[in-house]
Amino acid sequence: MSNLDATPVSAPGHLMAAEIAEQPQVWRRLLTEGLDPIRAAADRIAQSAPRFAQLVARGTSDHAALYAKYLIEIKHGLPAGLVSPSTVTVYGARPDLRDVLYIAVSQSGGSPDLVRSVEVARAAGALTVAVTNNAESDLAAAAEIHIDVLAGSERSVAATKSYTAELLALRLLLSSGGDGGGAEALPELGEAVLASGEQVREVAQRYRFAQRLITTARGYSYPTAREAALKLMETSYLSAQAFSGADLLHGPLATVDPQVPVLAIVPDGAGGQAMLPVLERLAERHADVFGVGAPAALAGLAGGIALPTGVPDDLSPLLEILPLQQLALHLALARGGDPDQPRGLRKVTETL
Amino acid sequence: MSNLDATPVSAPGHLMAAEIAEQPQVWRRLLTEGLDPIRAAADRIAQSAPRFAQLVARGTSDHAALYAKYLIEIKHGLPAGLVSPSTVTVYGARPDLRDVLYIAVSQSGGSPDLVRSVEVARAAGALTVAVTNNAESDLAAAAEIHIDVLAGSERSVAATKSYTAELLALRLLLSSGGDGGGAEALPELGEAVLASGEQVREVAQRYRFAQRLITTARGYSYPTAREAALKLMETSYLSAQAFSGADLLHGPLATVDPQVPVLAIVPDGAGGQAMLPVLERLAERHADVFGVGAPAALAGLAGGIALPTGVPDDLSPLLEILPLQQLALHLALARGGDPDQPRGLRKVTETL
Repeated sequence: MSNLDATPVSAPGHLMAAEIAEQPQVWRRLLTEGLDPIRAAADRIAQSAPRFAQLVARGTSDHAALYAKYLIEIKHGLPAGLVSPSTVTVYGARPDLRDVLYIAVSQSGGSPDLVRSVEVARAAGALTVAVTNNAESDLAAAAEIHIDVLAGSERSVAATKSYTAELLALRLLLSSGGDGGGAEALPELGEAVLASGEQVREVAQRYRFAQRLITTARGYSYPTAREAALKLMETSYLSAQAFSGADLLHGPLATVDPQVPVLAIVPDGAGGQAMLPVLERLAERHADVFGVGAPAALAGLAGGIALPTGVPDDLSPLLEILPLQQLALHLALARGGDPDQPRGLRKVTETL
Repeated sequence: MSNLDATPVSAPGHLMAAEIAEQPQVWRRLLTEGLDPIRAAADRIAQSAPRFAQLVARGTSDHAALYAKYLIEIKHGLPAGLVSPSTVTVYGARPDLRDVLYIAVSQSGGSPDLVRSVEVARAAGALTVAVTNNAESDLAAAAEIHIDVLAGSERSVAATKSYTAELLALRLLLSSGGDGGGAEALPELGEAVLASGEQVREVAQRYRFAQRLITTARGYSYPTAREAALKLMETSYLSAQAFSGADLLHGPLATVDPQVPVLAIVPDGAGGQAMLPVLERLAERHADVFGVGAPAALAGLAGGIALPTGVPDDLSPLLEILPLQQLALHLALARGGDPDQPRGLRKVTETL
């Protein structure tokens, strides 16, 4: 065993590293023992024939909720919205939620504002679903249906495996027919993507002294841009801002110059294609753009990490985030931080 | 006439300065000649008895749409969501939008993705409303109902008067009964707030060399935090990030230290009250917090701009943004930029 392998268990980032590596195994669990309860939940939802969907979440789970919003609008043709819990908890709104599918997403299931939002939604006539990593949580109890994402105990404050487990559980819940729809291939693909971790360690060196950074993507991959930015903020304390490619052109593009690094997620498929005009505008501003995605889209950029091709674009977010989680880990370590215990944060955040 | 008054008409920022100053007059116009068409539109909406609302917008107008989302959820008890146009324009989604109120907000009414979204929504059964500053625009033509915000020609790339005109038009449209509901007092209050512009010029000096900045608020004022961040990005090129006070605690708080300035919007009322626990957590991190809002909430902060008290919290956003627009203007000028012509931006942004 080399010295590198003898890293003591208390080394900074060891929890986050282990939880990143565990993801393909978590997905396998969801695709086997997790599948029947999710199918049963999908049947219940289909019976209730909702006409509108609302999603409520905070932090990392909010990005899984955003992914679910795209699935609901595109695959189910239902209008959907992300809830601002303050409308209920701060202003006392009591909306009419008949015919509404109301999905709360939370790793811990412990934030009082989410629990309260679900209680109010259920009383207002919505079909309520909690997607959590804790079957014993208040949120799981508050909702009519609970889906356990089966990620196992997550100890790093920077959430990784619970995020992709939430994505996969939501994808299984919301894919028509309730089958995997190609998801069965994900664990093996995930292992292949994670194996390129050494490459990401080198990429992190490029951002060692960056104070600000922009992430951008469109469609299903926009949640990846949001989650990558949050991971970089949490672990490495830089000001990382995520923009949909379209929104980036409506104002924030002015902040971009060669001193502000840009991470673009450009997968195979329609979402990646829609980023090409954005990459052109970024090139006009001589931006330093690093890509994660389809090999063809990476040509001409400052650098890139190639992802497997041929993955449906609604599954791609599970793979895209893996090297970006590794980037957040390696950048935090390079900067002397401990991504398992970011300054100022607690694992369970309670907001009212 | 002093030399200061003899500023030539081509001086950097003169358009933005003039358009900021013009806002109370724009509001007066909306509250008089604008009122009847808005009342007629409100009647049409009431007759159609929508059960859900969707809003679509980009950039500055997206913040007006977010404000409208709070109004719809709180005042009308209807679930509401912000649309990602890419679901329709990139992925070809064709949602079932019967019983849906679909509101598009855009200064120019010229972005093809918004026009397409409204066309699809109208064909899918929604009652479509366009809120624009251009009655001749494609967006105005595409929607069943058009509301002109009557801001007059806006020439600065950094939008100011069209933003508050959109806020007021949406407030008049969505306040029950279609009356002003206290809005009549806004022009005079706005003039008083704008009169403290010299103070803001001094505040701008504090941020002369800042590269990153965080804005935060909750509820009705969260759109103010978003819009202030966008103005600072557009005009002064700093990385300004907006977080709802609750979301700030779920991760991004780790980025805050005494070197990262925070702008908190803390008005009178429930939204400002809900910020107090956030201010406590920021104080634990020894953050430099500058406040805009109720005099009582500013005590103990690094500095602040007091707003008039007693303004209903759903009207407060029109006043809160004024000193923050002035801050963006003065900071851009202090940094040698021209906020009328930010680098890399066009006045009408066309995204697909």
